[in-house]
Amino acid sequence: MADSIPLPISLPQHPPLLVVVSGPSAVGKDAALTRMRELNYPFYFLVTNTTRPKRPEEVEGVDYHFVTREQFQEMEGNGDFLEHAVVYGYDYGNSRRQVREALARGLDVIMRIDVQGAATIKRLVPDAVFIFLLPPTLDKLERRLRKRRTEPEEYLRLRVHAARLEMSEMDKFDYVIVNEDDALDDTADLIYSIIRAEKCRVKPRQIVV
Amino acid sequence: MADSIPLPISLPQHPPLLVVVSGPSAVGKDAALTRMRELNYPFYFLVTNTTRPKRPEEVEGVDYHFVTREQFQEMEGNGDFLEHAVVYGYDYGNSRRQVREALARGLDVIMRIDVQGAATIKRLVPDAVFIFLLPPTLDKLERRLRKRRTEPEEYLRLRVHAARLEMSEMDKFDYVIVNEDDALDDTADLIYSIIRAEKCRVKPRQIVV
Repeated sequence: MADSIPLPISLPQHPPLLVVVSGPSAVGKDAALTRMRELNYPFYFLVTNTTRPKRPEEVEGVDYHFVTREQFQEMEGNGDFLEHAVVYGYDYGNSRRQVREALARGLDVIMRIDVQGAATIKRLVPDAVFIFLLPPTLDKLERRLRKRRTEPEEYLRLRVHAARLEMSEMDKFDYVIVNEDDALDDTADLIYSIIRAEKCRVKPRQIVV
Repeated sequence: MADSIPLPISLPQHPPLLVVVSGPSAVGKDAALTRMRELNYPFYFLVTNTTRPKRPEEVEGVDYHFVTREQFQEMEGNGDFLEHAVVYGYDYGNSRRQVREALARGLDVIMRIDVQGAATIKRLVPDAVFIFLLPPTLDKLERRLRKRRTEPEEYLRLRVHAARLEMSEMDKFDYVIVNEDDALDDTADLIYSIIRAEKCRVKPRQIVV
C-alpha cells in the first residue's frame, strides 16, 4: 500500500506573516522582542533605522541601525522606507526592502513600532498581525520611563500623556497583551502563541508589502 | 505615589471559551484531548454521553459517559442535550447543563465532537472556537482506523469514505491542525496556543450557550 494517499482537500497555504508589535513608549516592546530573540524563535526581526542616540545597553544592528540625519534623509529620498516617522524629535524608519526580502525567504517578520507607525502599517498592510502591548498600570509605565533616565522630566510627563492617548488606539489592533513586570517570558510566549495560532487559521492572512 | 493608577482604557473582558475540537473518525481527537488532560492545562473537558460500547482502554466518566439506550432517551426527553446525533448507529449527546455550569464557574470548556455535531454547535454557538484536526494522509487515517480493530472491514471503508466528505467541511472551521503520527504533544500545544491567542483578542468572542 502506498504511504502517501493525499488528502482530498488542500491545506490552507500560509504565506509568511508580518507581525507588528506596538504600544506606548517604555511598555517593553524592545525587551519582549529581545527575549524572543534569546529564545531562538525562528523569526526575522526587522531592525529599525533611527537618528536617536544609542542608549548604553543597545547594540547597533541588533536593537536599531543608528544612522545620521543625512543617511536617514538619503534612504528616505531613495524610497527605502515602508514607513517613517518623527517620534519625540528623532527619525525612525523601517525598510520595505528588508521586509520583502525576508518574506520572500519564507520568514515571518516581526517589527516593533510606535503606535503612530503601526497605524501607517495598518493602512499599507491591513492583513498584518497587530499586537498591542499594555503596561499593567499607568504608574508602572511611568516608573519604567524614569528608569531609563535618558530624558529630562518634562519629556517624561509628555510621554505619559502620549501613552494615555496611544492606549486609546488599542481597538484597532488584533491582540492585546499586558506586559507585566518581570514577566517577559510570558509576553514572549504569548506573542509566539499568537503567531502559531495564526498559522493554523483555515483562512490565511494575505500579506502584501 | 500610589501604586495602581489604572489604565485610561478598559481591557477586553474575556468570558470563558467554548472550544470545539472536531475532525474525521480516528484522526486523533480523543488522544489529543487526553494529552491535554495529562499536561494539566486548566480546562473543563466536556464528557460526551454515548450508547457506543466502551473500548478496553476507555474509562467511564473520563472518555465518555457510557449509558444505555434507555438512559440516553430519558436525557433526550428531558432536553438535557445541547446537541445529540447518531454516528455509525450509536447515540452521542453533549449536555447543555454541564457546559453552562462550567462556563459559569469561569472555566473554558473543550468539547470533542464529530463533524456533523460541530456543524450543529456552529449554528447554536457561532462564536465558539472551532478547531479541525486532519490526518497527515488518507492512508494514515485508514491505518489508525484499522488499529482499533473494533469494527468489521465494511465499516472501515465506510469511515474512510465519510472522512473524505467530512474533510470538505474544514472551511467552516476557524483553525486546522494536521495531527501527525507520534506528535500528540505538538497537537496539544497548538490547541493550547490557539486558546491563549484567543484570550488576547482585542474583540473577545461572546459565548452564549
